[in-house]
Amino acid sequence: MSGILKAKPRVGYSYCNTVQLDQFRQSLANITVRDVCSLPVVINEADSVYDGIVAMFLENVGSLIVLSKGNLAGMVSRKDIIKASMGNIDIQSVPIGLIMTRMPNLYMAYPTDNIYNAAKRLIDHNIDSLPVVEKKERAGQVFYEVIGRLTKTTVTQLFVEVLELTNAEA
Amino acid sequence: MSGILKAKPRVGYSYCNTVQLDQFRQSLANITVRDVCSLPVVINEADSVYDGIVAMFLENVGSLIVLSKGNLAGMVSRKDIIKASMGNIDIQSVPIGLIMTRMPNLYMAYPTDNIYNAAKRLIDHNIDSLPVVEKKERAGQVFYEVIGRLTKTTVTQLFVEVLELTNAEA
Repeated sequence: MSGILKAKPRVGYSYCNTVQLDQFRQSLANITVRDVCSLPVVINEADSVYDGIVAMFLENVGSLIVLSKGNLAGMVSRKDIIKASMGNIDIQSVPIGLIMTRMPNLYMAYPTDNIYNAAKRLIDHNIDSLPVVEKKERAGQVFYEVIGRLTKTTVTQLFVEVLELTNAEA
Repeated sequence: MSGILKAKPRVGYSYCNTVQLDQFRQSLANITVRDVCSLPVVINEADSVYDGIVAMFLENVGSLIVLSKGNLAGMVSRKDIIKASMGNIDIQSVPIGLIMTRMPNLYMAYPTDNIYNAAKRLIDHNIDSLPVVEKKERAGQVFYEVIGRLTKTTVTQLFVEVLELTNAEA
């Protein structure tokens, strides 16, 4: 990739040299979701709401990706958990699949999406986190394999790194 | 402000012309918290946890700024609410002041801070939201007047806007 930012998956960026703004723009436009996304934090849809809360605290994340037979089935956020807790349910026995946002009402990102599109999706749909998926087909059935997650934290971190790189030249 | 980005408080940015990268860097470095922060969403520390949950849902925010006598007293997040709900408390009677993160254990931002420092504070301390405050003194007592909030959503939105502006030139 030409430009001032060289992205390496899960490693970071290296700074090249002083360039024109259009090259900088090109570098940013070339950053893909694959370059910056985090590892997915998942739970099975049959696990309890209580298990979900524990996983959120142990992993320190604001949302969990919910799997069914190993593929994307839904997303559950802190907001969903609070709503469920208000509703006098038994969080030990109710499965997470009952309170999650379910496919196909999910926004997703593909690893090849550029970061601008993914960040805009977060803002436009007012969500904190996107599952990063690969679309697969088997016996005419479409399913989504989860390979990562992209959150507002990812984008904020990237913003900080980009400013640090441009400042390093100042 | 010189550079390609002209920030106007709560209005947005206007694009100037093609410039060198160092001017672009300067423009970004000149963006202050005041330029981009949102209106604060507040609650009083004597209000109940239930009131806090209702306020979070009505305002659609992930955290509330808690006031005591009109000044900053603490912050309460969705995480605090979930922890409290797990603990078998009566959310209708327990005050939000009992479960919030209290001064002086708070991270804050000043309106004159640049956006890089504020965004870095969010990442370094693993928090979603900073209260934006003005420091005041009366009768030898220091207190903080709340004038806004700055969140990972604010930074993600700014990231999207900056990319749109640089792309507009492409």
